[in-house]
Amino acid sequence: MQKIKSATDYRNELESRGALPEGFSTGFTGLTFSPTELGSDQVMEMNLSMLMLDKPTTVFAGTFTKNLFPGAPVLLCRKRLENDRFRGIIINNKIANVCIETGVEDSEELLKAAAVQLGCSPDELMASSTGVIGWRLPVNEMINALPSAVESLRSNSRRNAVELAERIMTTDSFPKLRSRSVCGGRITAVAKGAGMIEPNMATMLCFIITDLSISRDELREMLPPIVGETFNRISVDSDQSTSDMVIAASSDRKPCADKAEFRKALYEVCSELAEDIVRNGEGTGHVIRVTVDGAASVEEASAIGKALVNSPLVKTAIAGNDPNVGRFASSIGDYCGNNGIKLPVDKMEISLGGELIFSGGGFCMTPAKEFRLAAYLSECGTIPEHKGWPVHEKTVNIDINIGMGNSRSTILGSDLTHEYVRENADYRT
Amino acid sequence: MQKIKSATDYRNELESRGALPEGFSTGFTGLTFSPTELGSDQVMEMNLSMLMLDKPTTVFAGTFTKNLFPGAPVLLCRKRLENDRFRGIIINNKIANVCIETGVEDSEELLKAAAVQLGCSPDELMASSTGVIGWRLPVNEMINALPSAVESLRSNSRRNAVELAERIMTTDSFPKLRSRSVCGGRITAVAKGAGMIEPNMATMLCFIITDLSISRDELREMLPPIVGETFNRISVDSDQSTSDMVIAASSDRKPCADKAEFRKALYEVCSELAEDIVRNGEGTGHVIRVTVDGAASVEEASAIGKALVNSPLVKTAIAGNDPNVGRFASSIGDYCGNNGIKLPVDKMEISLGGELIFSGGGFCMTPAKEFRLAAYLSECGTIPEHKGWPVHEKTVNIDINIGMGNSRSTILGSDLTHEYVRENADYRT
Repeated sequence: MQKIKSATDYRNELESRGALPEGFSTGFTGLTFSPTELGSDQVMEMNLSMLMLDKPTTVFAGTFTKNLFPGAPVLLCRKRLENDRFRGIIINNKIANVCIETGVEDSEELLKAAAVQLGCSPDELMASSTGVIGWRLPVNEMINALPSAVESLRSNSRRNAVELAERIMTTDSFPKLRSRSVCGGRITAVAKGAGMIEPNMATMLCFIITDLSISRDELREMLPPIVGETFNRISVDSDQSTSDMVIAASSDRKPCADKAEFRKALYEVCSELAEDIVRNGEGTGHVIRVTVDGAASVEEASAIGKALVNSPLVKTAIAGNDPNVGRFASSIGDYCGNNGIKLPVDKMEISLGGELIFSGGGFCMTPAKEFRLAAYLSECGTIPEHKGWPVHEKTVNIDINIGMGNSRSTILGSDLTHEYVRENADYRT
Repeated sequence: MQKIKSATDYRNELESRGALPEGFSTGFTGLTFSPTELGSDQVMEMNLSMLMLDKPTTVFAGTFTKNLFPGAPVLLCRKRLENDRFRGIIINNKIANVCIETGVEDSEELLKAAAVQLGCSPDELMASSTGVIGWRLPVNEMINALPSAVESLRSNSRRNAVELAERIMTTDSFPKLRSRSVCGGRITAVAKGAGMIEPNMATMLCFIITDLSISRDELREMLPPIVGETFNRISVDSDQSTSDMVIAASSDRKPCADKAEFRKALYEVCSELAEDIVRNGEGTGHVIRVTVDGAASVEEASAIGKALVNSPLVKTAIAGNDPNVGRFASSIGDYCGNNGIKLPVDKMEISLGGELIFSGGGFCMTPAKEFRLAAYLSECGTIPEHKGWPVHEKTVNIDINIGMGNSRSTILGSDLTHEYVRENADYRT
């Protein structure tokens, strides 16, 4: 439970990470509106953020939620990916624009008005929304707020992505920003959200920008597998939002001599943001890192890891600093038994915090080991009511070898605490 | 939140349901032991229960967990099902006898000693255990307690299954017993557990007895699909225990003129017990009944229903009496999108408590409907801290038609409350 980092430390860290790559600017404004669904006496505030390139680029890529009810911005961005040029993205919080008859039209109307202000084609703009599902965007109020956002964009004196990371937050508990200096250029990325963990506020959004010159095809080839190995291997509460998206773009300013180095840096940025998202989950007390090795395929290893981190019994045991190892084995056995995976139980090994807890077909626990593991869990935890900066970067490490093959996958998850229930059940009561 | 039933009412109801079919007796005793895993200064109490036929029968059947790490009793009972004759089952709580090297030998030693006392072959006996995973059975102490259990069995004056329903409980909050008088005979069944919801205490156990004459083959043909449509369609916390079992036996005393009637009664008994188990779940405030219609197959309908009742966001919304309908649609879209089900969104309809909330591709909510649905959820709930008898039999009804085919399935689940986290995380803190 030690705090190894203060809020000031964390903010300084973000500032030092946050420099914008060349060729990008950000702009912001706020506005108020009354959701038509609630009536005019309810006034809410919305943030409008712009992340823009100084000149249009051909180098951009995106990956989106597989949810069958994607938000209008997801539908719109998917189409815009087919276009030749990309100039930037307009991001709002509070309303996700999902399952609304006029959803796509509403987003398009906003982009059309923004294009006039920015002097570009609406086809070069994307939209990204996060918030309540089933409410309509206040398009008129958003359009009225555009001039102030554009003014902020043009003055763009700060050249640091920290404000973007903050402005796109909904109920996130801290801004999430990661970067790498690589090959003489930069990759800077911000993210918000924690799966669908938040009350009514859906969506993980991630925006990745770089000034390094790689080709459109290279970026589009790199991004999906990296997202697959990072953001798609986290699970806060097993729910996938209707609006999840990752957008990447390059301003194409600096030659990139080593594509492998670039790829590695992109992977690291995504991997760190994915962990930040889990750590940020409402009510997260412990971040759980499960590595499943010895599987027949990466998919199998990932599925077993997800079964473990999504088991409410495993999640609550870890929340309570309880090395209840029977639950680990049971959740693995449940998944394998129901999915036809004939795991050789006598070859399986499970470790918690580096200590072997299951081997040779059975548990190898002693009262002394129980005591050590309870202390380990306690040491890796944060008080889940903590609402500010992340106080440490510790994880609860569970390592499993299922003794069947050579494939491996690491999954990140979070525990299940009172704070989670408080955020998601006590919302309106 | 009305209480429509008192504890006395509930007990009287159980008594009136509980008459044993002809040809069966029950016996009970208690014992104390020190788990070798904790050391000799820890003393625990265990219940030993016997459910026996007066004479061996050939008519018995069983279904078991698909967990890949089944308990020793599951391994043993699966083998015993191949035998010709069945005389009864010996049931203990506190230790589940799972992942122990000597597990099957331990159970066999107990049955051998019991067979001597009962004057039968050990091959005619089954064992059933529930409790901590990874601890060893106190076989000596259990053997020493057998004479007292057999004495209680022989005096068997009460001829009511209520005591069996109570004695097999672990942290269940009320005994679960259902029955039917049918074709001039009886079906009586007891169950314990709520999936793996309880701290350390795994296992759903169900024992079904009848005096009606059906054949061994008929019973074995009937039981699995009925279990598939009842117990396999509930999900308290999506975890399947290592020890789940349903055992059925007939004393073959009374001719059964109408097999269809018998099947219907067997289905009803299982269906009611399945619902009792969900209602009994620790921390359950609302029982959720999701009916998915219009699916391409029953399996697809069941999977969509389970995705909904296992979504932590749906579970917490219902716990908070919050008709957060966006979460319903999102969890369906998440499952279908990730499993290649091309659901026609514009044809889908969702109702909550009989009120249409999604139709024609979007939500149809109004402030007045929101208010009515919040009141409906509140009306269907029980204070989750309530620890005694079930105060009502209300369910939160969610009806979905996905407009693809003609198959249908009903899934029962429970909400996710602070009480659940308290039971499962605060266990050792």
